[in-house]
Amino acid sequence: MSPVENIYDLAVNGVRQLVPYVAGKPIEELERELGLTDIVKLASNENPLGPGKKALAAIQATLPKLTLYPDGNGFSLKSALAKKYKVNADQITLGNGSNELLELVARAFLAPGLEAMFSEHAFAVYPIVTQAVGATAAIIPALHYGNDLAAMAARVSAKTRVIFIANPNNPTGTLLRQADLQRFVSSLPGHCLCVLDEAYFEFVDNKEGINSLDWLLANPNLIITRTFSKAYGLAGLRVGYSLSSPEIADILNRVRQPFNNNALALAAAEAALADGDYLQQTIATNTQGMQDLTIGFKGLGLEWIPSAGNFVSVDLKRPGQPIYEALLRLGVIVRPVANYGLPNHLRISIGTPAENQFFLKALADTLANV
Amino acid sequence: MSPVENIYDLAVNGVRQLVPYVAGKPIEELERELGLTDIVKLASNENPLGPGKKALAAIQATLPKLTLYPDGNGFSLKSALAKKYKVNADQITLGNGSNELLELVARAFLAPGLEAMFSEHAFAVYPIVTQAVGATAAIIPALHYGNDLAAMAARVSAKTRVIFIANPNNPTGTLLRQADLQRFVSSLPGHCLCVLDEAYFEFVDNKEGINSLDWLLANPNLIITRTFSKAYGLAGLRVGYSLSSPEIADILNRVRQPFNNNALALAAAEAALADGDYLQQTIATNTQGMQDLTIGFKGLGLEWIPSAGNFVSVDLKRPGQPIYEALLRLGVIVRPVANYGLPNHLRISIGTPAENQFFLKALADTLANV
Repeated sequence: MSPVENIYDLAVNGVRQLVPYVAGKPIEELERELGLTDIVKLASNENPLGPGKKALAAIQATLPKLTLYPDGNGFSLKSALAKKYKVNADQITLGNGSNELLELVARAFLAPGLEAMFSEHAFAVYPIVTQAVGATAAIIPALHYGNDLAAMAARVSAKTRVIFIANPNNPTGTLLRQADLQRFVSSLPGHCLCVLDEAYFEFVDNKEGINSLDWLLANPNLIITRTFSKAYGLAGLRVGYSLSSPEIADILNRVRQPFNNNALALAAAEAALADGDYLQQTIATNTQGMQDLTIGFKGLGLEWIPSAGNFVSVDLKRPGQPIYEALLRLGVIVRPVANYGLPNHLRISIGTPAENQFFLKALADTLANV
Repeated sequence: MSPVENIYDLAVNGVRQLVPYVAGKPIEELERELGLTDIVKLASNENPLGPGKKALAAIQATLPKLTLYPDGNGFSLKSALAKKYKVNADQITLGNGSNELLELVARAFLAPGLEAMFSEHAFAVYPIVTQAVGATAAIIPALHYGNDLAAMAARVSAKTRVIFIANPNNPTGTLLRQADLQRFVSSLPGHCLCVLDEAYFEFVDNKEGINSLDWLLANPNLIITRTFSKAYGLAGLRVGYSLSSPEIADILNRVRQPFNNNALALAAAEAALADGDYLQQTIATNTQGMQDLTIGFKGLGLEWIPSAGNFVSVDLKRPGQPIYEALLRLGVIVRPVANYGLPNHLRISIGTPAENQFFLKALADTLANV
């Protein structure tokens, strides 16, 4: 080819400025770098129990069919989700993680000149998917580390096309009251879609419960996204889904790749959905671990943001990055959140009792020596 | 929300007109519809041998880690690909099937006002990814059912940003001469990227060989896409990759989701890449099957498009749809290709010897009775 242009000049506008998502450090990477083994990773809000037996059995049963394309319509998993959540299958869109649902919404509904709104300290994927399609981000200052619904409502304009709200919020763990959220969703104008990101809803322990599915009928612009990566323990398989009006699901399904979920992922997710024991054990482990970690923080004189998820962000009252690096050298991976506007915090995923204790000891040693 | 607009009016322009990819009919779907078992599916160019032992062993070894996110950088698989193909790891982009690579190219480089060029009878995903980002499709009439490079070169304009060329072409199986293709690629202006879709290159049996990797250095606008879904037998796992200049790989890697390939897919693909015996057996089965099918067609007085892939499109000299439907009732799924501009053809994937014979008998019966 001749004469070759600068390839970067050929990329579309949004893409040229795109800064990729920063993931939790993989265990293998730390092993390679420091020659460590027995690493404790509490960095990516993963399920500490290991995969469930039913999911594993479903994978085994599916292995002989690996040469075949997956069912591109996810008929069986959608049927199971529809039954469990009392929705119609045509309200469901399956994604390669709920990450993909967030991206599909952006690709289907956002464009240059339109605006996506989300909170300060919100999930890092919201600005990325907004930027990638060249839309504008309206970032609303947080209220007590969480979504400020009143401020968000006040900022809605004719340009606002999508509002992303995580409940519980990641990385802060804050939880909105369902009644407040319902009022907010119901008040939005018809040109404005609301993505309610419930990646962590299974961990929520409150009397009110999560009842957002009940709002779908009255709010055809509501999109609820959920995932099998957290409470269901299948982060490695990448399965998420959205629940919405059939119209939105139709549009999202047009945009997605024909085989966006792989065959083992579909089978494992369906089996995991039916594994009530695993879910219960997961939640119990999380409740206990949250208690252990926060007691530990208290003992170290540290404050934290009260969290409804399977993680907690602790306030070190000094820059988190050096503490993060010192913890790495002790074989503990946690998550720095300076890129979320929280430079003095570290986000800790709840582990097993042993992992939590190992982390707390490493943290105590680090704070005493760094 | 009130007053609710028509949701479809909120979708971006390209998406509103999007018609989804039509996949080969899944076996389970036909079972549900007709109550059949023992169905022979020769519809999606899948590997008839079943998954390889090495890939299955790699999956088993990865199962305990399913609760962890995959390595978002695909370090290990990229290293293996780099070694095998003598490229640098920073020239590789991994995708959820090579379908995703095609989509990433469109999202990174195409936009309204820009043009993607491809041939008549080309892979159906090219128009879909073009349409989804609102770009214009320039469809060049085919030459002998394949890409007409001279006509394509003549149509290149300032607006042409991406040219998609499959070699071998799907669904026709036509193969370009490497020397012609190299001349075409080298002649393109610098603003024009060429995607060379080599999903079927492992099946090519010719003296000249596929040497497109050698052109990467001189042609930084060249993108070669390949897949583990065909010769490597992992369609169910969705792994594809592209080889390009580091600049293009950097851009594509920014656009992709952070965990677009799942953990089992990454592990299985790496193991499959090292399984030379499986690949050899696959190619031998394909060569024999192609011979058996074409002998069968000849016996039925039918013509076909000579194919370099693991499929062959047969000319029925009458509409293919009724024949396709009659074959379904006999438990054989093949692929109608009217939506590829070939209403009188059916595309048959090469199966095992038994599957090929079963199909040929069903075809003979059908042609005699329909």
